[in-house]
Amino acid sequence: MVLAMKLIGMLDSPYVRRVAISLKAMNFSFEHEELSVFNDIEKMKVVNPLMKAPSLMTDEGILLIDSTLILEYLDRKCNENYSLLSKNMEQFTKSQYLIGIALTLCDKAVQLFMEYNRRPPEKFYQEWVDRINEQLQAGLSLLDQQVIINDAGYLIDNRIMQADISIAVMLKYIEKKLSSIYNNYVSKKLKVFSSAMESTSLF
Amino acid sequence: MVLAMKLIGMLDSPYVRRVAISLKAMNFSFEHEELSVFNDIEKMKVVNPLMKAPSLMTDEGILLIDSTLILEYLDRKCNENYSLLSKNMEQFTKSQYLIGIALTLCDKAVQLFMEYNRRPPEKFYQEWVDRINEQLQAGLSLLDQQVIINDAGYLIDNRIMQADISIAVMLKYIEKKLSSIYNNYVSKKLKVFSSAMESTSLF
Repeated sequence: MVLAMKLIGMLDSPYVRRVAISLKAMNFSFEHEELSVFNDIEKMKVVNPLMKAPSLMTDEGILLIDSTLILEYLDRKCNENYSLLSKNMEQFTKSQYLIGIALTLCDKAVQLFMEYNRRPPEKFYQEWVDRINEQLQAGLSLLDQQVIINDAGYLIDNRIMQADISIAVMLKYIEKKLSSIYNNYVSKKLKVFSSAMESTSLF
Repeated sequence: MVLAMKLIGMLDSPYVRRVAISLKAMNFSFEHEELSVFNDIEKMKVVNPLMKAPSLMTDEGILLIDSTLILEYLDRKCNENYSLLSKNMEQFTKSQYLIGIALTLCDKAVQLFMEYNRRPPEKFYQEWVDRINEQLQAGLSLLDQQVIINDAGYLIDNRIMQADISIAVMLKYIEKKLSSIYNNYVSKKLKVFSSAMESTSLF
């Protein structure tokens, strides 16, 4: 009997969520252990002393860390019909480009959320926040220019791929955690795309 | 004529450095534009509005962001004899595991450096620093337990692979930027490995 893979982390992290949705999209069976890197510190340390989510315990008992490294592993492991990365080099490159923008926006959004929520008010540093805000606005504008939604409703191919997932989880994170950024700097096109993705059964 | 790829970013970033060394190890010719995300803001914005390094301009003119996404692209593009990831699934999984630890340690080391160096002293937040310090110590200890240097002097195979590069650039970053962490929490074994890697022609 092969043990199921186990995903560890909270779905309010866009990194955990992209792995969870990708596991489903790739048709893997997996368990999900919802441990928080902030609220379940002692349990988390036992799983992963680095206290980082997502972590994926593979069915051979190896603990993988970092969502992109985990997804690279899953891409090699999955049935190739379910791969979320195109074999076509042009499509693959476009996908890596869009995922790069999405992940950088995730990083910046998380940094901004942490500055607001994980520090006492007197440790809040406005210049740093201004820089991140500028990066977020620039990235959302770039993404709006670069995203083309095809007739099937997706970005790369005629089915959901990793670029679709990564952009959608980033947009939902910003909507939930940084609503003024979402309201003011996410374009209509990206909002429509987000709603469409969130209404699919995978999300 | 095919344009050369261009790597953008400063080599004092471990993420830029892992891509630079990997490009050489994969036998790619490339240009390197040393722009700083802090000191060359206007030039950097033109290249990448998200102000993130490394960025890789591909020879088709696509700008890739995020070192792991860039390396995944390069792995598909390179002559397979030069791939830095094993085709053997067991070796590949072990490699992703070690790279995951290395990248998380990079993230934590960069966060600590930024807290010390990119904020005015009154915005320094000791509790956050304590948490990062604990993560760094735990991760370095885990890495020391998990790393096995083979007879050829490498971690995964009988030649340099991505796990070797990622761990070595992380150790050098900590040595240069956080010397007290390096002196107190990096094991003898890891220090010997770092010196050996840094003395090769690729580094």
